[in-house]
Amino acid sequence: MKQFKKVDAKDLQYFEALMPGRVMHGDGISTDYDHDEMTEYGHFKADAVLQALTAQEISAVMKYCNEQHIAVTPRGAGTGLCGGCVAIHGGIILSTEKMKKVLEVDEKNMTATVEPGVLLMEFPKSLEGTGLFYPPDPGEKTATMGGNVMTNAGGMRAVRYGVTRDYVLGMEVVLPDGTIMELGGKNVKTSSGYSLLDLMIGSEGTLGLLTKLTVKLIPEPKCNLSLMIPFADLENCISAVPKVLACGCEPTAVEFMEREVIACAEKYLGKQFPDTSADAYLLVRLDGASVDALQPSIDALTDLCLDLGAKDVLLADTDERKESIWNARGAFLEAIKGSTPSMDECDVVVPRDKIAAFVKTSGEIGKKHGVRICSFGHAGDGNLHIYACQDELQGEDWKKAVSGVMDDLYFAARELGGEVSGEHGIGHAKREFLHQSMGETQVRLMRGIKAAFDPNGILNPGKVI
Amino acid sequence: MKQFKKVDAKDLQYFEALMPGRVMHGDGISTDYDHDEMTEYGHFKADAVLQALTAQEISAVMKYCNEQHIAVTPRGAGTGLCGGCVAIHGGIILSTEKMKKVLEVDEKNMTATVEPGVLLMEFPKSLEGTGLFYPPDPGEKTATMGGNVMTNAGGMRAVRYGVTRDYVLGMEVVLPDGTIMELGGKNVKTSSGYSLLDLMIGSEGTLGLLTKLTVKLIPEPKCNLSLMIPFADLENCISAVPKVLACGCEPTAVEFMEREVIACAEKYLGKQFPDTSADAYLLVRLDGASVDALQPSIDALTDLCLDLGAKDVLLADTDERKESIWNARGAFLEAIKGSTPSMDECDVVVPRDKIAAFVKTSGEIGKKHGVRICSFGHAGDGNLHIYACQDELQGEDWKKAVSGVMDDLYFAARELGGEVSGEHGIGHAKREFLHQSMGETQVRLMRGIKAAFDPNGILNPGKVI
Repeated sequence: MKQFKKVDAKDLQYFEALMPGRVMHGDGISTDYDHDEMTEYGHFKADAVLQALTAQEISAVMKYCNEQHIAVTPRGAGTGLCGGCVAIHGGIILSTEKMKKVLEVDEKNMTATVEPGVLLMEFPKSLEGTGLFYPPDPGEKTATMGGNVMTNAGGMRAVRYGVTRDYVLGMEVVLPDGTIMELGGKNVKTSSGYSLLDLMIGSEGTLGLLTKLTVKLIPEPKCNLSLMIPFADLENCISAVPKVLACGCEPTAVEFMEREVIACAEKYLGKQFPDTSADAYLLVRLDGASVDALQPSIDALTDLCLDLGAKDVLLADTDERKESIWNARGAFLEAIKGSTPSMDECDVVVPRDKIAAFVKTSGEIGKKHGVRICSFGHAGDGNLHIYACQDELQGEDWKKAVSGVMDDLYFAARELGGEVSGEHGIGHAKREFLHQSMGETQVRLMRGIKAAFDPNGILNPGKVI
Repeated sequence: MKQFKKVDAKDLQYFEALMPGRVMHGDGISTDYDHDEMTEYGHFKADAVLQALTAQEISAVMKYCNEQHIAVTPRGAGTGLCGGCVAIHGGIILSTEKMKKVLEVDEKNMTATVEPGVLLMEFPKSLEGTGLFYPPDPGEKTATMGGNVMTNAGGMRAVRYGVTRDYVLGMEVVLPDGTIMELGGKNVKTSSGYSLLDLMIGSEGTLGLLTKLTVKLIPEPKCNLSLMIPFADLENCISAVPKVLACGCEPTAVEFMEREVIACAEKYLGKQFPDTSADAYLLVRLDGASVDALQPSIDALTDLCLDLGAKDVLLADTDERKESIWNARGAFLEAIKGSTPSMDECDVVVPRDKIAAFVKTSGEIGKKHGVRICSFGHAGDGNLHIYACQDELQGEDWKKAVSGVMDDLYFAARELGGEVSGEHGIGHAKREFLHQSMGETQVRLMRGIKAAFDPNGILNPGKVI
């Protein structure tokens, strides 16, 4: 790794002239910028944090840093889970958290154009009254839309509606040399050369810095309801998933949850989960025009799941009941975090018929290394969130155990035809596992792509590849 | 452009030893290989045509050609429309037309794995009885699935189901140095490094040669019906599109057609179109569980379109009636071809609210240059197929006129925020327009990507970039 230039007084002066009052350095930098949501992956101090407001500012900063060889780490809300927005090589953090304008909602084309810092939880307000909605729905609602694009976030509704990638129509990005580039636009399809847009999506800020985003919207379904389906055990529960997906009911979400994780959530939220009858649950959400229109799907799902050994099929069609279930689901990550002094996570994706096998294996791996494993996840798309909890383990014992768990989990995922990350990304924490999974040829190609976009390697160094 | 080595007797001997009986050269090469469906873009003779059966053969050939600096042009069924599979720099055509095995239909994961040469029209046979289907539906059913992936083909059902890109989960590709590389698999989502898979899709055989393909299948809708909606004129017809899309009826297809093009199709098919009352039609297809389930959508669409000035809303719910409409639609390209000695085509995509403006402009551009313009297309996704017909124009007059028409059409598309190709690709015929549309920075990035994959530039030279 080439040495990056440390930010000095002259550099700070330059930045401050460009972005008066929005340059922090030294002790003026909040410790929040040292890490993302996974403090376990270390704390790293940036030389300076710059809060940009425009693409032009970002262009000027990037050009300067490219010439001076100062490392630039793009950052949104800092809600990532693999250290992607942390300045591991120092230099500057270039934050787009203040770029949070919704620039346009175009009802005719069913698109919205936003600045990258718009929060996922804020965006729906701009769509009120249009009858349109933006389907990507990661659990972390305080994430930015730009961050979601850069990690290709998935979320709860991906089974039916697809992931963030499927909703990005256009973007404006600033390249390391300062060039401001427009990709795509409002067109809903294209076969016009290599898809630089798709390359940028999920690139975790290593190829360019996102400054504007045009997303596709779709008509909001008028009605949604959820089915909570208790099973005697997890294996039965997860084995039902492929059949649920194939039955033609077009589920929006298919999640699984275990009693142990539910218990953590109950404790965390101080609220009881609405059912206590079972060890494992499948949660299925259906969207449609009306309850009547959904009735055939509800009937088909009910018959199917009872046939497959479900203990019951509970319909949640009131707001209160839906909230109690989905709030529990939404609290899982924080709840598990709260149940243990530290943890590590694995976000692999496997073919859907391999989920049951993988969950079983992950339990065995936990036992082998003496580590408590919690898991939940997007059963409908094979994406599992597996947590290794530190609990009573100390120091080197924990380090050794968790490292063994992670090695074994990624190995098992690979064996089952899986990939390293379903939706959280690679950052710096999962680089090694990505390389093992991809092999030399793909890593070489990715490095070639990186070199074409960022020949000096100043942009988010040490991430992804 | 660096000179490529011409294939000589020694090379042929090498190829013949690898692929006995499947190497053609000189006059042994059918003239079919000289061009694709657009003979207007010229005839080019390859030195040799090799019909591969396995990835291993392709690997050996690529490695050899890379070392010898022989140009390699990948080819499927040759049904492209922009010269992408034509050996404009000589060398070999490496055809996958004989690789047409469906290797697996995995009902549990709802995927199929196929060789690239499987024809779009053959593939559904392999899915019979599974209740699953493969949504991409380009008009050209004799195209290969591999070719569809390499141009990111769109087709009739893209409005609801998306384009080919949305159905590619995994592939095996051979790189120019002979490396056989697996990308993706059966996972339905991933955030694991740069999406080499997405980069490969739509790259028109310039980055690697596709040898295996895993596609996503979805449950087949049990019922479909079409609405044929006559309008007094094209402007009214097309202006209705954004409202149709926003009304929540989730159309599978929204096509527009003009009387003049319908007349060509009637002549070509020797069959009357089922309605003669109007100059322009919107064709809307709906998929669902049953006619009952679709009834609210039919009602909503009917009310909406009558409000917007439609003369009538005709329901096609019998196979016979559906066929008569969609067969006409499917015959448009061939019918227009048959109506004129030669033609050129433009496959731009524009934002959906700009379709009416673009169709109007294209008519004016035709008048300006004295060229008859026929158009039809995927109104639902802003993708227009515009044909400039030679008719009585001769020699240089035609050349000059058609060149003027194309320059003006692409300029107009750009002004409206459009892109060069919605689904046909770039090949060699539209390279210049791509470059104008993308600008220097994007072309430079694409060249950088090309260099990472194909440092010697042997793979499909002269295409895309």
